[in-house]
Amino acid sequence: MPHITLPADMPGIRGLMAFRPETAAPINELVDVLLRGPHTLTPGERELIAAYVSSENDCKYCRTIHGAVAARHLNNEPLVAAVTCDFEHADITEKMKALLAIAGRTATSGKHVTPADIARAREHGATDLEIHDTVLIAAVFCMCNRYVDGLATLAPDDPEFYRERAKIVSAAGYAASAITPSPSQ
Amino acid sequence: MPHITLPADMPGIRGLMAFRPETAAPINELVDVLLRGPHTLTPGERELIAAYVSSENDCKYCRTIHGAVAARHLNNEPLVAAVTCDFEHADITEKMKALLAIAGRTATSGKHVTPADIARAREHGATDLEIHDTVLIAAVFCMCNRYVDGLATLAPDDPEFYRERAKIVSAAGYAASAITPSPSQ
Repeated sequence: MPHITLPADMPGIRGLMAFRPETAAPINELVDVLLRGPHTLTPGERELIAAYVSSENDCKYCRTIHGAVAARHLNNEPLVAAVTCDFEHADITEKMKALLAIAGRTATSGKHVTPADIARAREHGATDLEIHDTVLIAAVFCMCNRYVDGLATLAPDDPEFYRERAKIVSAAGYAASAITPSPSQ
Repeated sequence: MPHITLPADMPGIRGLMAFRPETAAPINELVDVLLRGPHTLTPGERELIAAYVSSENDCKYCRTIHGAVAARHLNNEPLVAAVTCDFEHADITEKMKALLAIAGRTATSGKHVTPADIARAREHGATDLEIHDTVLIAAVFCMCNRYVDGLATLAPDDPEFYRERAKIVSAAGYAASAITPSPSQ
Protein backbone atom coordinates (compact mmCIF):
# COMPACT_ATOMS: atom_id res chain seq x y z
CA MET A 1 0.00 0.00 0.00
CA PRO A 2 1.40 3.43 -0.86
CA HIS A 3 2.62 5.52 2.09
CA ILE A 4 0.34 8.43 1.07
CA THR A 5 -3.14 8.55 -0.45
CA LEU A 6 -2.87 8.21 -4.24
CA PRO A 7 -5.38 7.49 -7.05
CA ALA A 8 -5.95 3.70 -6.91
CA ASP A 9 -6.07 3.33 -10.69
CA MET A 10 -2.70 4.98 -11.40
CA PRO A 11 0.23 2.72 -10.41
CA GLY A 12 3.90 3.66 -10.26
CA ILE A 13 5.00 7.22 -10.84
CA ARG A 14 1.69 8.19 -12.47
CA GLY A 15 -0.27 8.37 -9.22
CA LEU A 16 2.50 10.54 -7.75
CA MET A 17 2.29 12.83 -10.77
CA ALA A 18 -1.47 13.18 -10.34
CA PHE A 19 -0.90 13.97 -6.63
CA ARG A 20 1.72 16.67 -7.34
CA PRO A 21 1.34 18.11 -10.87
CA GLU A 22 3.69 21.02 -10.02
CA THR A 23 6.64 18.63 -9.82
CA ALA A 24 5.32 16.22 -12.47
CA ALA A 25 5.64 18.86 -15.23
CA PRO A 26 9.42 19.43 -14.98
CA ILE A 27 10.11 15.72 -14.37
CA ASN A 28 8.25 14.79 -17.56
CA GLU A 29 9.95 17.59 -19.49
CA LEU A 30 13.37 16.39 -18.30
CA VAL A 31 12.65 12.77 -19.24
CA ASP A 32 11.26 13.76 -22.65
CA VAL A 33 14.38 15.82 -23.48
CA LEU A 34 16.74 13.06 -22.32
CA LEU A 35 15.00 10.01 -23.77
CA ARG A 36 13.18 11.41 -26.80
CA GLY A 37 14.89 14.68 -27.84
CA PRO A 38 17.12 14.96 -30.92
CA HIS A 39 20.21 12.82 -30.29
CA THR A 40 22.97 10.65 -31.70
CA LEU A 41 21.76 7.81 -29.47
CA THR A 42 18.41 6.38 -30.56
CA PRO A 43 15.39 6.55 -28.24
CA GLY A 44 15.68 2.76 -27.91
CA GLU A 45 19.32 3.02 -26.76
CA ARG A 46 18.47 5.73 -24.24
CA GLU A 47 15.51 3.73 -22.90
CA LEU A 48 17.90 0.78 -22.48
CA ILE A 49 20.02 2.94 -20.15
CA ALA A 50 16.88 3.88 -18.17
CA ALA A 51 15.75 0.24 -17.96
CA TYR A 52 19.22 -1.00 -16.99
CA VAL A 53 19.66 1.55 -14.17
CA SER A 54 16.12 0.86 -12.89
CA SER A 55 16.93 -2.85 -12.93
CA GLU A 56 20.18 -2.26 -11.00
CA ASN A 57 18.12 -0.29 -8.45
CA ASP A 58 15.54 -3.10 -8.41
CA CYS A 59 12.62 -0.76 -9.11
CA LYS A 60 9.95 -3.05 -10.57
CA TYR A 61 7.68 -0.35 -12.03
CA CYS A 62 10.46 1.68 -13.71
CA ARG A 63 12.50 -1.28 -14.99
CA THR A 64 9.39 -2.89 -16.49
CA ILE A 65 7.87 0.18 -18.12
CA HIS A 66 11.19 1.45 -19.52
CA GLY A 67 12.09 -2.08 -20.58
CA ALA A 68 8.76 -2.24 -22.43
CA VAL A 69 9.34 1.16 -24.07
CA ALA A 70 12.89 0.15 -25.07
CA ALA A 71 11.57 -3.14 -26.50
CA ARG A 72 8.96 -1.26 -28.50
CA HIS A 73 11.50 1.20 -29.94
CA LEU A 74 13.99 -1.60 -30.71
CA ASN A 75 11.30 -4.13 -31.68
CA ASN A 76 13.20 -6.68 -29.59
CA GLU A 77 12.04 -7.84 -26.15
CA PRO A 78 14.74 -10.51 -25.70
CA LEU A 79 17.49 -7.92 -26.28
CA VAL A 80 16.18 -5.78 -23.40
CA ALA A 81 16.18 -8.83 -21.12
CA ALA A 82 19.74 -9.67 -22.23
CA VAL A 83 20.96 -6.11 -21.53
CA THR A 84 19.48 -5.87 -18.04
CA CYS A 85 20.80 -9.37 -17.22
CA ASP A 86 24.36 -9.05 -18.59
CA PHE A 87 24.94 -6.16 -21.00
CA GLU A 88 28.63 -6.99 -21.58
CA HIS A 89 27.55 -10.11 -23.48
CA ALA A 90 24.43 -8.68 -25.14
CA ASP A 91 24.12 -7.98 -28.87
CA ILE A 92 24.67 -4.20 -28.65
CA THR A 93 27.48 -1.92 -29.86
CA GLU A 94 30.75 -1.60 -27.94
CA LYS A 95 29.90 2.07 -27.42
CA MET A 96 26.60 1.14 -25.75
CA LYS A 97 28.39 -1.37 -23.51
CA ALA A 98 30.82 1.36 -22.42
CA LEU A 99 27.96 3.81 -21.78
CA LEU A 100 25.98 1.21 -19.80
CA ALA A 101 29.09 0.60 -17.68
CA ILE A 102 29.21 4.35 -16.91
CA ALA A 103 25.48 4.30 -16.10
CA GLY A 104 25.95 1.38 -13.71
CA ARG A 105 28.79 3.15 -11.90
CA THR A 106 26.70 6.33 -11.63
CA ALA A 107 23.84 4.35 -10.10
CA THR A 108 26.13 3.22 -7.28
CA SER A 109 27.71 6.65 -6.81
CA GLY A 110 28.89 9.40 -9.12
CA LYS A 111 32.31 9.01 -7.54
CA HIS A 112 32.56 5.49 -8.95
CA VAL A 113 32.84 6.72 -12.55
CA THR A 114 36.55 6.50 -13.38
CA PRO A 115 38.74 8.08 -16.10
CA ALA A 116 39.16 4.52 -17.42
CA ASP A 117 35.37 4.20 -17.85
CA ILE A 118 35.33 7.45 -19.80
CA ALA A 119 38.37 6.44 -21.89
CA ARG A 120 36.65 3.18 -22.84
CA ALA A 121 33.58 5.09 -24.04
CA ARG A 122 35.68 7.56 -26.04
CA GLU A 123 37.65 4.71 -27.61
CA HIS A 124 34.37 3.48 -29.05
CA GLY A 125 33.42 6.93 -30.33
CA ALA A 126 31.30 8.35 -27.48
CA THR A 127 31.01 12.15 -27.56
CA ASP A 128 30.90 14.58 -24.63
CA LEU A 129 27.13 14.87 -25.10
CA GLU A 130 26.63 11.10 -25.10
CA ILE A 131 28.73 10.74 -21.93
CA HIS A 132 26.93 13.67 -20.27
CA ASP A 133 23.49 12.34 -21.13
CA THR A 134 24.36 8.81 -20.04
CA VAL A 135 25.36 10.07 -16.59
CA LEU A 136 22.29 12.30 -16.39
CA ILE A 137 19.88 9.56 -17.55
CA ALA A 138 21.37 7.24 -14.90
CA ALA A 139 21.06 10.00 -12.28
CA VAL A 140 17.46 10.80 -13.29
CA PHE A 141 16.45 7.17 -12.90
CA CYS A 142 18.16 6.99 -9.52
CA MET A 143 15.73 9.80 -8.68
CA CYS A 144 12.65 8.19 -10.26
CA ASN A 145 13.36 4.77 -8.72
CA ARG A 146 13.67 6.29 -5.22
CA TYR A 147 10.57 8.43 -5.77
CA VAL A 148 8.45 5.46 -6.87
CA ASP A 149 9.70 3.00 -4.22
CA GLY A 150 10.19 5.55 -1.41
CA LEU A 151 6.44 6.17 -1.42
CA ALA A 152 5.65 2.46 -1.89
CA THR A 153 3.62 2.90 -5.07
CA LEU A 154 2.04 -0.13 -6.67
CA ALA A 155 3.51 -1.98 -9.67
CA PRO A 156 1.18 -4.30 -11.63
CA ASP A 157 2.41 -7.87 -12.25
CA ASP A 158 0.91 -8.31 -15.74
CA PRO A 159 3.53 -7.64 -18.48
CA GLU A 160 0.67 -6.72 -20.83
CA PHE A 161 -0.08 -3.65 -18.67
CA TYR A 162 3.42 -2.31 -19.40
CA ARG A 163 3.27 -3.23 -23.11
CA GLU A 164 0.01 -1.31 -23.51
CA ARG A 165 1.40 1.66 -21.58
CA ALA A 166 4.59 1.54 -23.69
CA LYS A 167 2.51 1.90 -26.86
CA ILE A 168 1.06 5.18 -25.55
CA VAL A 169 4.34 6.54 -24.22
CA SER A 170 6.44 5.61 -27.24
CA ALA A 171 3.95 7.32 -29.54
CA ALA A 172 3.20 10.48 -27.55
CA GLY A 173 6.04 10.98 -25.04
CA TYR A 174 6.01 11.23 -21.26
CA ALA A 175 4.54 14.68 -20.70
CA ALA A 176 1.72 14.18 -23.23
CA SER A 177 0.77 10.73 -21.96
CA ALA A 178 0.96 11.49 -18.23
CA ILE A 179 -2.76 12.27 -18.21
CA THR A 180 -3.77 9.57 -20.74
CA PRO A 181 -5.46 6.60 -19.07
CA SER A 182 -4.19 3.15 -19.96
CA PRO A 183 -6.66 1.00 -21.93
CA SER A 184 -6.98 -1.38 -18.98
CA GLN A 185 -8.01 1.39 -16.62
CA MET B 1 39.36 17.45 -13.89
CA PRO B 2 35.83 17.07 -15.27
CA HIS B 3 35.24 14.06 -17.55
CA ILE B 4 33.88 16.33 -20.33
CA THR B 5 34.83 19.84 -21.45
CA LEU B 6 33.00 22.40 -19.28
CA PRO B 7 33.36 26.17 -18.71
CA ALA B 8 36.35 26.50 -16.32
CA ASP B 9 34.76 29.32 -14.33
CA MET B 10 31.53 27.47 -13.48
CA PRO B 11 32.09 24.75 -10.85
CA GLY B 12 29.62 22.10 -9.72
CA ILE B 13 26.30 21.72 -11.47
CA ARG B 14 26.50 25.17 -13.06
CA GLY B 15 29.04 24.17 -15.72
CA LEU B 16 26.84 21.18 -16.58
CA MET B 17 23.84 23.46 -16.92
CA ALA B 18 25.76 25.76 -19.27
CA PHE B 19 26.79 22.67 -21.30
CA ARG B 20 23.21 21.34 -21.59
CA PRO B 21 20.62 24.12 -21.15
CA GLU B 22 17.83 21.85 -22.46
CA THR B 23 18.08 19.68 -19.34
CA ALA B 24 19.07 22.55 -17.02
CA ALA B 25 15.70 24.28 -17.46
CA PRO B 26 13.48 21.48 -16.09
CA ILE B 27 16.00 20.60 -13.34
CA ASN B 28 16.00 24.21 -12.10
CA GLU B 29 12.21 24.39 -12.34
CA LEU B 30 11.87 21.17 -10.31
CA VAL B 31 14.27 22.40 -7.62
CA ASP B 32 12.58 25.81 -7.43
CA VAL B 33 9.13 24.22 -6.94
CA LEU B 34 10.40 21.80 -4.29
CA LEU B 35 12.69 24.09 -2.30
CA ARG B 36 11.12 27.51 -2.81
CA GLY B 37 7.46 27.03 -3.79
CA PRO B 38 4.55 27.71 -1.41
CA HIS B 39 4.76 25.14 1.39
CA THR B 40 4.12 24.29 5.03
CA LEU B 41 7.85 23.54 5.41
CA THR B 42 10.01 26.68 5.25
CA PRO B 43 12.63 27.07 2.50
CA GLY B 44 15.27 26.70 5.24
CA GLU B 45 13.79 23.35 6.35
CA ARG B 46 13.63 22.08 2.76
CA GLU B 47 17.22 23.18 2.07
CA LEU B 48 18.23 21.27 5.22
CA ILE B 49 16.83 18.09 3.63
CA ALA B 50 18.80 18.82 0.43
CA ALA B 51 22.01 19.50 2.38
CA TYR B 52 21.57 16.42 4.57
CA VAL B 53 21.02 14.04 1.63
CA SER B 54 23.96 15.57 -0.27
CA SER B 55 26.09 15.09 2.83
CA GLU B 56 25.00 11.45 3.13
CA ASN B 57 25.96 11.01 -0.54
CA ASP B 58 29.28 12.80 0.16
CA CYS B 59 28.79 15.30 -2.67
CA LYS B 60 31.02 18.24 -1.68
CA TYR B 61 29.56 20.81 -4.08
CA CYS B 62 25.88 20.08 -3.33
CA ARG B 63 26.22 19.64 0.41
CA THR B 64 28.19 22.89 0.72
CA ILE B 65 26.01 25.08 -1.50
CA HIS B 66 22.73 23.77 -0.06
CA GLY B 67 24.17 23.97 3.44
CA ALA B 68 25.05 27.60 2.74
CA VAL B 69 21.58 28.34 1.35
CA ALA B 70 19.94 26.62 4.36
CA ALA B 71 22.18 28.60 6.74
CA ARG B 72 21.22 31.84 5.01
CA HIS B 73 17.47 31.09 5.20
CA LEU B 74 17.74 29.95 8.84
CA ASN B 75 20.39 32.54 9.77
CA ASN B 76 22.22 29.76 11.57
CA GLU B 77 25.38 28.09 10.19
CA PRO B 78 26.06 25.93 13.29
CA LEU B 79 22.55 24.41 13.08
CA VAL B 80 23.21 23.20 9.51
CA ALA B 81 26.48 21.60 10.63
CA ALA B 82 24.67 19.96 13.56
CA VAL B 83 21.93 18.56 11.29
CA THR B 84 24.30 17.07 8.73
CA CYS B 85 26.46 15.61 11.52
CA ASP B 86 23.71 14.13 13.76
CA PHE B 87 20.19 15.42 13.10
CA GLU B 88 18.58 13.30 15.83
CA HIS B 89 20.33 15.46 18.43
CA ALA B 90 20.10 18.81 16.61
CA ASP B 91 17.88 21.70 17.71
CA ILE B 92 15.10 21.11 15.17
CA THR B 93 11.46 20.00 15.50
CA GLU B 94 10.52 16.35 16.02
CA LYS B 95 8.68 16.52 12.69
CA MET B 96 11.87 17.61 10.91
CA LYS B 97 13.82 14.78 12.56
CA ALA B 98 11.24 12.28 11.31
CA LEU B 99 11.33 13.76 7.79
CA LEU B 100 15.14 13.74 7.73
CA ALA B 101 15.05 10.07 8.74
CA ILE B 102 12.78 9.37 5.73
CA ALA B 103 15.14 11.38 3.50
CA GLY B 104 18.13 9.36 4.70
CA ARG B 105 16.37 6.07 4.02
CA THR B 106 15.36 7.28 0.54
CA ALA B 107 18.99 8.18 -0.20
CA THR B 108 20.03 4.57 0.44
CA SER B 109 17.08 3.08 -1.46
CA GLY B 110 13.39 3.91 -1.75
CA LYS B 111 12.70 0.41 -0.49
CA HIS B 112 14.29 1.28 2.85
CA VAL B 113 11.48 3.67 3.81
CA THR B 114 9.28 1.70 6.24
CA PRO B 115 5.71 2.14 7.49
CA ALA B 116 7.29 2.86 10.90
CA ASP B 117 9.25 5.79 9.41
CA ILE B 118 6.02 7.17 7.96
CA ALA B 119 4.10 6.60 11.22
CA ARG B 120 6.76 8.51 13.16
CA ALA B 121 6.43 11.48 10.79
CA ARG B 122 2.61 11.44 11.02
CA GLU B 123 2.77 11.24 14.81
CA HIS B 124 4.58 14.56 14.72
CA GLY B 125 2.05 16.11 12.35
CA ALA B 126 3.57 15.50 8.92
CA THR B 127 1.06 15.71 6.05
CA ASP B 128 0.92 13.64 2.87
CA LEU B 129 2.42 16.58 0.96
CA GLU B 130 5.29 16.97 3.43
CA ILE B 131 6.05 13.24 3.25
CA HIS B 132 5.80 13.25 -0.56
CA ASP B 133 8.04 16.27 -0.93
CA THR B 134 10.60 14.93 1.55
CA VAL B 135 10.95 11.73 -0.49
CA LEU B 136 11.10 13.68 -3.75
CA ILE B 137 13.64 16.22 -2.44
CA ALA B 138 15.81 13.32 -1.27
CA ALA B 139 15.39 11.59 -4.66
CA VAL B 140 16.17 14.81 -6.57
CA PHE B 141 19.42 15.27 -4.66
CA CYS B 142 20.36 11.64 -5.26
CA MET B 143 20.09 12.69 -8.92
CA CYS B 144 21.98 15.99 -8.57
CA ASN B 145 24.77 14.43 -6.47
CA ARG B 146 25.33 11.67 -9.06
CA TYR B 147 25.17 14.19 -11.92
CA VAL B 148 27.76 16.49 -10.32
CA ASP B 149 30.16 13.75 -9.18
CA GLY B 150 29.57 11.34 -12.07
CA LEU B 151 31.06 13.93 -14.43
CA ALA B 152 33.80 14.87 -11.93
CA THR B 153 32.92 18.56 -11.78
CA LEU B 154 35.04 20.86 -9.62
CA ALA B 155 34.03 22.03 -6.13
CA PRO B 156 35.85 25.08 -4.72
CA ASP B 157 37.39 24.73 -1.23
CA ASP B 158 36.69 28.28 -0.03
CA PRO B 159 33.48 28.44 2.11
CA GLU B 160 33.14 32.10 1.10
CA PHE B 161 32.48 31.02 -2.50
CA TYR B 162 29.38 29.11 -1.36
CA ARG B 163 28.21 31.91 0.99
CA GLU B 164 28.36 34.42 -1.86
CA ARG B 165 26.57 32.04 -4.20
CA ALA B 166 23.95 31.35 -1.51
CA LYS B 167 23.14 35.07 -1.32
CA ILE B 168 22.30 35.09 -5.03
CA VAL B 169 20.34 31.83 -4.99
CA SER B 170 18.37 32.57 -1.83
CA ALA B 171 17.30 35.93 -3.24
CA ALA B 172 16.51 34.97 -6.85
CA GLY B 173 15.97 31.19 -6.93
CA TYR B 174 17.73 28.48 -8.92
CA ALA B 175 16.38 29.06 -12.42
CA ALA B 176 16.91 32.82 -12.30
CA SER B 177 20.42 32.60 -10.89
CA ALA B 178 21.68 29.78 -13.11
CA ILE B 179 23.07 32.30 -15.56
CA THR B 180 24.16 34.88 -12.94
CA PRO B 181 27.96 34.87 -12.46
CA SER B 182 29.23 34.69 -8.90
CA PRO B 183 31.03 37.86 -7.71
CA SER B 184 34.30 35.94 -7.57
CA GLN B 185 34.04 34.84 -11.20
